[in-house]
Amino acid sequence: GHELLKQERARSNIPVEKLSEFLFTKEAINRKHRVLQVLRSEKVFDKSQNYFAGRIDRFETALARAKKLRQLKVEHNWSLEDFHTAGDLISEPGPYGLHESMFLITLREQGTPEQHELFFKKADNYEIIGCYAQTELGHGSNVRGLETTATWNAEDKTFTIHSPYLTASKWWIGSLGRTANYAVVMAQLIIDDKSYGPHPFVVQIRDLKSHEPLENIHIGDIGPKFGYNTMDNGFLLFNKVKVPHVNMLARFSRVDPSTNKYVRPSSPSLVYGTLTFVRSTIVFQSGSVLARGVTIAIRYCAIRRQFQDRDVQEWERGENQVLNYTMVQIRLLPLLAATFALHFTGRSMMQLYQMNQKKMNRRGSQAGPTQRGAGPEETHSGSELLADLHATSCGLKSLASSVAAEGLEMCRRACGGHGYSSFSGIGPWYSDYLPTTTWEGDNYMLTQQVARYLLKSARSVLKGETPNNDTTVILSDFLSRVDMGAAFDIIGKDEDLVAAFAWRTAYLTFEALRHRDKDKKAWNDLLVDFYRLSKAHSQYLVVKNFYEALHSTPTTHELDHDTLEVMQKLFRLYALHTLEQESSEFYTSGATTVRQIILARTNAVMKLLKEIRPHAVRLVDAWDFPDWQLDSSLGRSDGKVYEDLFFRASELNPLNAITVDPYPDNDVLFKKDMTQRLKSKL
Amino acid sequence: GHELLKQERARSNIPVEKLSEFLFTKEAINRKHRVLQVLRSEKVFDKSQNYFAGRIDRFETALARAKKLRQLKVEHNWSLEDFHTAGDLISEPGPYGLHESMFLITLREQGTPEQHELFFKKADNYEIIGCYAQTELGHGSNVRGLETTATWNAEDKTFTIHSPYLTASKWWIGSLGRTANYAVVMAQLIIDDKSYGPHPFVVQIRDLKSHEPLENIHIGDIGPKFGYNTMDNGFLLFNKVKVPHVNMLARFSRVDPSTNKYVRPSSPSLVYGTLTFVRSTIVFQSGSVLARGVTIAIRYCAIRRQFQDRDVQEWERGENQVLNYTMVQIRLLPLLAATFALHFTGRSMMQLYQMNQKKMNRRGSQAGPTQRGAGPEETHSGSELLADLHATSCGLKSLASSVAAEGLEMCRRACGGHGYSSFSGIGPWYSDYLPTTTWEGDNYMLTQQVARYLLKSARSVLKGETPNNDTTVILSDFLSRVDMGAAFDIIGKDEDLVAAFAWRTAYLTFEALRHRDKDKKAWNDLLVDFYRLSKAHSQYLVVKNFYEALHSTPTTHELDHDTLEVMQKLFRLYALHTLEQESSEFYTSGATTVRQIILARTNAVMKLLKEIRPHAVRLVDAWDFPDWQLDSSLGRSDGKVYEDLFFRASELNPLNAITVDPYPDNDVLFKKDMTQRLKSKL
Ligand SMILES: Cc1cc2nc3c(=O)[nH]c(=O)nc-3n(C[C@H](O)[C@H](O)[C@H](O)COP(=O)(O)OP(=O)(O)OC[C@H]3O[C@@H](n4cnc5c(N)ncnc54)[C@H](O)[C@@H]3O)c2cc1C
Ligand SMILES: Cc1cc2nc3c(=O)[nH]c(=O)nc-3n(C[C@H](O)[C@H](O)[C@H](O)COP(=O)(O)OP(=O)(O)OC[C@H]3O[C@@H](n4cnc5c(N)ncnc54)[C@H](O)[C@@H]3O)c2cc1C
Repeated sequence: GHELLKQERARSNIPVEKLSEFLFTKEAINRKHRVLQVLRSEKVFDKSQNYFAGRIDRFETALARAKKLRQLKVEHNWSLEDFHTAGDLISEPGPYGLHESMFLITLREQGTPEQHELFFKKADNYEIIGCYAQTELGHGSNVRGLETTATWNAEDKTFTIHSPYLTASKWWIGSLGRTANYAVVMAQLIIDDKSYGPHPFVVQIRDLKSHEPLENIHIGDIGPKFGYNTMDNGFLLFNKVKVPHVNMLARFSRVDPSTNKYVRPSSPSLVYGTLTFVRSTIVFQSGSVLARGVTIAIRYCAIRRQFQDRDVQEWERGENQVLNYTMVQIRLLPLLAATFALHFTGRSMMQLYQMNQKKMNRRGSQAGPTQRGAGPEETHSGSELLADLHATSCGLKSLASSVAAEGLEMCRRACGGHGYSSFSGIGPWYSDYLPTTTWEGDNYMLTQQVARYLLKSARSVLKGETPNNDTTVILSDFLSRVDMGAAFDIIGKDEDLVAAFAWRTAYLTFEALRHRDKDKKAWNDLLVDFYRLSKAHSQYLVVKNFYEALHSTPTTHELDHDTLEVMQKLFRLYALHTLEQESSEFYTSGATTVRQIILARTNAVMKLLKEIRPHAVRLVDAWDFPDWQLDSSLGRSDGKVYEDLFFRASELNPLNAITVDPYPDNDVLFKKDMTQRLKSKL
Repeated sequence: GHELLKQERARSNIPVEKLSEFLFTKEAINRKHRVLQVLRSEKVFDKSQNYFAGRIDRFETALARAKKLRQLKVEHNWSLEDFHTAGDLISEPGPYGLHESMFLITLREQGTPEQHELFFKKADNYEIIGCYAQTELGHGSNVRGLETTATWNAEDKTFTIHSPYLTASKWWIGSLGRTANYAVVMAQLIIDDKSYGPHPFVVQIRDLKSHEPLENIHIGDIGPKFGYNTMDNGFLLFNKVKVPHVNMLARFSRVDPSTNKYVRPSSPSLVYGTLTFVRSTIVFQSGSVLARGVTIAIRYCAIRRQFQDRDVQEWERGENQVLNYTMVQIRLLPLLAATFALHFTGRSMMQLYQMNQKKMNRRGSQAGPTQRGAGPEETHSGSELLADLHATSCGLKSLASSVAAEGLEMCRRACGGHGYSSFSGIGPWYSDYLPTTTWEGDNYMLTQQVARYLLKSARSVLKGETPNNDTTVILSDFLSRVDMGAAFDIIGKDEDLVAAFAWRTAYLTFEALRHRDKDKKAWNDLLVDFYRLSKAHSQYLVVKNFYEALHSTPTTHELDHDTLEVMQKLFRLYALHTLEQESSEFYTSGATTVRQIILARTNAVMKLLKEIRPHAVRLVDAWDFPDWQLDSSLGRSDGKVYEDLFFRASELNPLNAITVDPYPDNDVLFKKDMTQRLKSKL
């Protein structure tokens, strides 16, 4: 194992450290190693029993870790970035997860200064621990359908929070099950029998001393899940619980206690800002989420040997590294390329988001009143950048998290039998990541928002409005050339490859528009087309961002010639492999010919695999995951895979402290149970 | 929930019971309900804590269940079928799993009558408990590369079993970790310093009384896995352990103790028989494996409501069942069709296998000597049926288990957030099923064997040999028509749809042959093409088998007209949806035009979804899974999804018996732990 990885690293001249610094900045890398140092010295972060422990033990440890992490933050005066870095290194969801994200964010973003004083400060000090309670047993995606009510009582200026049906029970709420004593509760605001839609309320749910649920509140953990078991996702039912007027978060809308009238939201765009931010973060993280699996699989497949090459004399050169098999390469190397594609895309998303926030803050809250629910792409035809950003973040969130999740499973399977062991480190990581495809907008449903935006853009182009962003530019470009046809040299020219993706998006957009506006097809009958359209558009964005990142000045300056060349090959591999997988849309749109696709598949892609293969290990090294973070026998950077598998199984595995009685007629099960001894030994 | 499923069932006239009987026979259904009765009355089979328990508890319960199951078998004089039915209903791998399958089968198939007396009888009586130890830490797929040695000692007529390296450690061996006291060990037979390849040896590994490992044997459980955690997969190392001559299973090959010479295998075809049988079983089960997920998802999506239809007046008709969204239908209904496609394909595979076994037994062991490893498709040009069957079972095992595994994840995700709960019943089932894609031949690697067989068949057709099986028939048909081109009416005629799949297979076969024989491409450079070829061929087989099953006399006799019509729609949906997903191969081969594919996608498939939709619930009902078997809140046949989710979370969840201290500065974690009380209450 060890020797093989050494050889691999000797075969490529990619300067690993420099590439890492280019990808993440020197500062971030130093931070990581500094924080890692601290974590390693604390016993509570020892990972050696993670894969063995049951739900309750894992939750207990996660709680201990969450507490310690907070203590360390105070002790070392960690910045928020340091703190997040620590979380990344620990790599497990913890019981303060929602307190530290959505609870604090919502209080900050949607609270008034008075409410900041009252709630945010205490929360920020961990004097109260909160969660974000939106989803219910009966409603998740459809936020407007929530059933929990908050009824305004004019007499005593309070709200009554109530769950009228079982399906109104809050459900899936992170940090709620056992940990939180406060919740931001989304409830239908009702004044005078009239409903004003869901609004956020701050509600105390447990006693601050005894930590028992308050009267008329039923809370609990919702039980085991496919992953995420270190988190106490919970349920919550209210039986007519009163909260004071000040507990409705009132920055954007409120009830005037003197008139008992609803005061309308002033700038819902800011609310969409949060959604867009969260989705952009998911896009940004997807590259590194996938890179963990790719790192593990590529290292393992470089040390795993199985069979000799069929075209070589028997046993002549010993067994082949499985990474040499093209059938392994075709599964792993396009994913390796995808890690970089997603990384660059995520980075540019975040930049766009920050640019937009600045602009919005400058503009202040000028936008007019509107409804929640429809999304800014329809309501704010004014704020073009926000609309584009919102649609982009929907489409890319959907694509990126699907690519990452499915890629991880591909990596796991590429490791053969050992991939199924928890010690591979891929399975547990995959299980925890999987809900990302469902939350913050189900990946299938988000595509409708993208399609709606593209249709709207297409209508504006057809009306002859001047293109004012990339989307309308590619749509009008398409229109101007559609009669001449495209003649993209997808194999010879990288910019043509990007153009072919743009062409396909534009083609599918106008097709969908025709179905909707001309043929008057029902929205529901078009959902499958919309899904394809959104996917096409998002793939175009990834390809374009990857291309632009490689042609930007920082890149061409910072990377040496050889590394840049390998990166360009990764770009081509990603683009051509994607194109080949979606080939039918490329040829029906006329973006490419059938012949080009055959050539791409049989020649170009196969050639790229060969050329990238020698650099595979160094490329994953550049992702710079410490072994401690990966916690994987198969992905060890020193290649000592078998030794580590054996050690964990033979020395750390508590099941081996048990001796069973094997005979069916004997009802004794465990004859001897020394697990307690093992535990104390560890 | 309840009402909605009632309405669903009222909307379709499919006679559920009759369809079930047609699919499984009345006898099998009665057996299931009879056995279920027995299991439900035994407390040890109570499933209510399955999803909560940790590894050690789950293993303990699984052992208790395995013992009880054996006791019941004896007590009720159960047939093997009854016994397997019980296993299906319990639906978890158990510690006797490998004893009851590979250990017994290998002793029976590869033992001499003397060895039957010595080992098989005791094993069959559970006086000894065994496992099948082939895979090692360093070698799985490449059986010839195994490193464990069995060296013949001429002096005392014994074998020395030895693990020369760490990588020679047996690994992944089911039932070995804690349970077995015997193993069939595959080891390199060495006589006089010469290796004769891997052979099976019976080795006692634990003391029959104390159950401690015997001297010079190191055994243990390999640790937690992505699933399959009720099974004790183990490792095993030998330090020069001697076993007598009789412990080498000697039906097919042996060492002559008087001459010390190796006596060559007489009929390795029979060995391939076992492999083929195991793979055929996987194909046969894949339909029902997938059907569990499809049943759960379709029932849940029929009761889950979210949003109103966009084209309907606001709130006019309340919320829409999500199964009405075409984007949900396109994910679930083709999978529903696949369950039947796989079921019929599996059934015909099993029939073929049985036919072949009969033939082989008639022929006896006439086949000549040969090597293991290459597979019969190259070595036995004589036994055409076996070769075809072997290749078919490889390709279909690969396709069917991938379709089932990926389909289950698709079903889980279609359930949105609740799909992620263990109570969905899909996740745990998926996790346990997943290794099927890797064991009994890794799904990617098996495709090479299929390709090899197809290439050989193509060569024989090109040489002008008369087609003697379906494979050579479709290849020569293709050749005879290739210059005229195909003009299949894939949308209008079902038989043309089948023919289009055959055409694509033949086209890809001759393409691959050209690359290999004319262009002299390296085997490794063709692996991706081979993968596609094998997939194409196997998809053809599934489509063909589904078609033939619907046109056979028993079907047309037993099913009423309406049901048959729905089944034919399912056939079309499966075939057209598959075709559309693989469309590039269909048009490059000339099997269809681009226009046809567009029509298939936008018209035919969408229309079929609409037509099948009303029958969805009854169709899954026909799979006849008892609620007890599914153990799923989402898949309950009475639709009481929310009540059940709530009950399990609120009443059965042990985590809720714990009160935590939530404050980071306080090192107390659990203030109160009442889990013991909960346990005793249950
Ligand atoms: C691990 C985890 C943690 C979570 N944490 C929190 C939390 O802290 N706080 C919180 O409030 N929530 C939380 N959630 C809930 C999460 O936000 C929701 O589960 C998610 O929004 C999906 O909604 P749903 O479950 O209602 O899916 P549904 O909307 O019920 O989806 C079911 C199916 O219907 C389809 N569908 C639904 N509507 C349409 C439509 N209009 N068109 C086409 N198809 C449609 C979907 O694609 C899906 O296949 C969490 C969920 C998970 C899994
Ligand atoms: C839950 C479970 C239970 C098991 N139970 C048993 C048991 O009871 N007894 C037993 O003996 N074994 C058992 N096994 C082992 C199982 O049979 C092997 O894991 C399986 O055969 C795969 O072999 P491998 O792990 O060596 O994969 P590898 O061969 O190492 O595969 C690694 C990767 O290399 C690729 N690859 C390898 N060779 C080639 C090639 N020539 N061309 C192209 N690609 C290639 C594969 O596709 C894969 O992606 C079990 C495994 C599991 C997961």
